[in-house]
Amino acid sequence: MTDTLPIARSVRELRTYVARWRNQNLTVGFAPTMGALHDGHLDLIRALKGRCDRTIASIFVNPKQFAAHEDLDRYPRDEAGDAAKLASAGCDLLYAPPREVMYPDGHSTSVSVAGVSEPLEGEARPHFFGGVATVVTKLLLQCLPDVAAFGEKDYQQLLVVKRMVRDLDMPVEIMGVPTTREADGLAMSSRNAYLSPEERIVAARLNVILREAVEQLESGANIMTTLVKIERQIFKAGFSEIDYVAIRGEDDFLPIASPIVRRPARLLVAVRAGETRLIDNMAVGAMRP
Amino acid sequence: MTDTLPIARSVRELRTYVARWRNQNLTVGFAPTMGALHDGHLDLIRALKGRCDRTIASIFVNPKQFAAHEDLDRYPRDEAGDAAKLASAGCDLLYAPPREVMYPDGHSTSVSVAGVSEPLEGEARPHFFGGVATVVTKLLLQCLPDVAAFGEKDYQQLLVVKRMVRDLDMPVEIMGVPTTREADGLAMSSRNAYLSPEERIVAARLNVILREAVEQLESGANIMTTLVKIERQIFKAGFSEIDYVAIRGEDDFLPIASPIVRRPARLLVAVRAGETRLIDNMAVGAMRP
Repeated sequence: MTDTLPIARSVRELRTYVARWRNQNLTVGFAPTMGALHDGHLDLIRALKGRCDRTIASIFVNPKQFAAHEDLDRYPRDEAGDAAKLASAGCDLLYAPPREVMYPDGHSTSVSVAGVSEPLEGEARPHFFGGVATVVTKLLLQCLPDVAAFGEKDYQQLLVVKRMVRDLDMPVEIMGVPTTREADGLAMSSRNAYLSPEERIVAARLNVILREAVEQLESGANIMTTLVKIERQIFKAGFSEIDYVAIRGEDDFLPIASPIVRRPARLLVAVRAGETRLIDNMAVGAMRP
Repeated sequence: MTDTLPIARSVRELRTYVARWRNQNLTVGFAPTMGALHDGHLDLIRALKGRCDRTIASIFVNPKQFAAHEDLDRYPRDEAGDAAKLASAGCDLLYAPPREVMYPDGHSTSVSVAGVSEPLEGEARPHFFGGVATVVTKLLLQCLPDVAAFGEKDYQQLLVVKRMVRDLDMPVEIMGVPTTREADGLAMSSRNAYLSPEERIVAARLNVILREAVEQLESGANIMTTLVKIERQIFKAGFSEIDYVAIRGEDDFLPIASPIVRRPARLLVAVRAGETRLIDNMAVGAMRP
């Protein structure tokens, strides 16, 4: 077991590692992150290790996916702690480019994805997916891994990345990794660190509400009725605000037109506990006949 | 000498050729075109052959870079003739994807480049560079050549592609290839086929006017005075319309603020002979002291 992890800080260094592995016929898995790593990120590495010979995690807090009023400056950063966690999970390389490597002076190209990026998170955070699409394109083309892993926690982001990779013909396979949860079911997130002890108790109610709703939907409950019920329960649990509660098709992310769920879908929510924005989602199977 | 050229029509076929060459440690050069090939396109292949072991040309008339009123439908197409020309120039593979390979249903990702794409052609043809950036990204990522060649005839496009490749960290070198001209100096273009015999005579005046202006600028002529003089000469020569006559920095494509040319620049024009839009450009060296 190793405690230290090599760190690449430039595209050239990153590509030197990848080229060396490729010359040895080793496959490469890649997990792009914004750092402040928790067990959910380490599950990305673990999932990649099941598929690839070598794994790389990147840490870059991407300014282009934060709006001016958002938490770019106070977003948690702990590179040394992150590197130790990655090493303990068996990661082979940390890629931690400084901002001037990612966005040198004169940088003026952006990638945008229409359709799947527009509702829900796209409405709540208009800058978000443009920033994500651009930085993920850069990271994937800098690294050119065989497989890149993204968490289902950010389910819409996963679909945006899959759409983009297909549309631009990037030679990379995108793997979705199931959401990692705390013992009480709260979806792991770097932003959970913002929660006060009281808000942390409220936050844990979200996954319980969703899990119950999924059961009801899979038993044939009416979609609109269930969504309204979820909203009522969220406020009752002590959340301060709801951005959205929605059901969308699992792959196409289109609204479900039928009164009950007849095809694989996803139940998605964005709420606030105090000032902290939390998102979660769960798969909804087609109603069992 | 071979007269026939293998043709790939899917990304998978294209990548099979490229992978085979890579396994033999051969380097790959790529020239994306819209077909209707002339000697200027073949010069791209010849330039690539000086740098790479194998060369690929693509032919795809990209609908995304045409506006509704433009000439997408009547744009000249002659795949058999193009293939024969490429074979005679020593090209190793033609990539001719059908529209559904490039833009399958649901395609919704686009690449855009701010800054260098905005003036001149960007003003005259607002759809153009977005369409170019998206299709070139796809073609480069489908092929992943070592070097891709673009003609200096479309000088602003060359700068847009260079900027985009750098900004998105595509692992491809972009090579600019000097404009190929007819015996009378007319820049070769697939759209020259639209010219009537009378317009063809007018068209040939453009390069003469530009060449004289470059000489004067390099001898210290005032920029504004020279641009006005060029415009007067263009109308006098019988052109029906001027989109722009401009001088820009060779690399940054910024306007030249000084009264005379003090750093490497480019003189660029877009005009119409009859209904046919023609562009041309020439390098302007910094004034010799």
